[in-house]
Amino acid sequence: MNGQFPSILLEKAVNEFAKLPGVGRKTAMRLVLHLLRQDTAMVENFANAIVTLKQEVKYCKVCHNISDTETCRICSNPQRDASIVCVVENIHDVMAVEATQQFRGLYHVLGGVISPMDGIGPGDLEIESLVQRVAAGGIKEVVFALSTTMEGDTTNFYIYRKLEKTGVKLSVIARGISVGDELEYADEVTLGRSIVNRTPFSGAV
Amino acid sequence: MNGQFPSILLEKAVNEFAKLPGVGRKTAMRLVLHLLRQDTAMVENFANAIVTLKQEVKYCKVCHNISDTETCRICSNPQRDASIVCVVENIHDVMAVEATQQFRGLYHVLGGVISPMDGIGPGDLEIESLVQRVAAGGIKEVVFALSTTMEGDTTNFYIYRKLEKTGVKLSVIARGISVGDELEYADEVTLGRSIVNRTPFSGAV
Repeated sequence: MNGQFPSILLEKAVNEFAKLPGVGRKTAMRLVLHLLRQDTAMVENFANAIVTLKQEVKYCKVCHNISDTETCRICSNPQRDASIVCVVENIHDVMAVEATQQFRGLYHVLGGVISPMDGIGPGDLEIESLVQRVAAGGIKEVVFALSTTMEGDTTNFYIYRKLEKTGVKLSVIARGISVGDELEYADEVTLGRSIVNRTPFSGAV
Repeated sequence: MNGQFPSILLEKAVNEFAKLPGVGRKTAMRLVLHLLRQDTAMVENFANAIVTLKQEVKYCKVCHNISDTETCRICSNPQRDASIVCVVENIHDVMAVEATQQFRGLYHVLGGVISPMDGIGPGDLEIESLVQRVAAGGIKEVVFALSTTMEGDTTNFYIYRKLEKTGVKLSVIARGISVGDELEYADEVTLGRSIVNRTPFSGAV
């Protein structure tokens, strides 16, 4: 987007949109012009939705997932298995695991991973509250479902050291070839892991 | 984005963002989570910028460009040549022409092009006000700078018929090979036009 803005109000709105991740000035301009063509009520709904979320957002006091109530829908659901806790980085990951419908336990949202490069240490994450949750008893297994990156692995290991003496079973989600992927395009670390961690085959996977 | 939202407030905000053009539900979620990580003041600035723009936006009474004042900065600039008017589709195009720094006249923003498919007729555009502007005198040339599409050409022709008897010079921006383009990749209509409308060559273009 070259050229001088014809209006300071327009420029301000474009600047705000351009602060969003992955939104450049051209896209920001397109989005603002789109909103300008909508009626006032629609624009106000748009603005209110995000302000209301920011002002009234709550986090579950048990798992730290985003929630409209003190305890989230998952933690307060008696149908869920409270003896198994899946440790994830953020609420995005809770939704991703939920979408698989393969997990019936509870979650623990760390709020990030340990990343010295970004200045994020263990104290910035909900690790201490996880340790206390395990110490309180009732949990039999903790499943680590963090990103398979250096930062994710560091965080896995840090929490592992904190929990290894509690006697609780610790597991990590399987790493291997994605379903539908062709072997020749898989990276060698992933392929290597999938061979080392091969699973018994009984005619169907 | 699969899975149930953990919060209705979150879902509402994501739904609002997903209404923006080119923003899917995954991107909407990413943008909302980004804003959620910012402080409240930043989120309020974001929301206020777009609501203020929508509520207080003005359009120049002369050229219909977006403006903070009754008459826009371009129309009220005595340095600009008021005898030449460039007809464009929207304010985006004003900024694009301004960025070239090759035009010192004024603009006339139609607010779209004639498009029966989208239900946009001449009455929905600022065509009558252009005819009156020309009839008021002082304008020597009208330059058509609309998109080189069927709709743009239809609009050009419609306005041409309205202005042809006024004696004002009518011109259209040159169509030809883009600077930097290779001939073999140019479409044949464009290449044909560029041959028909060839310009005198004096050693440098």
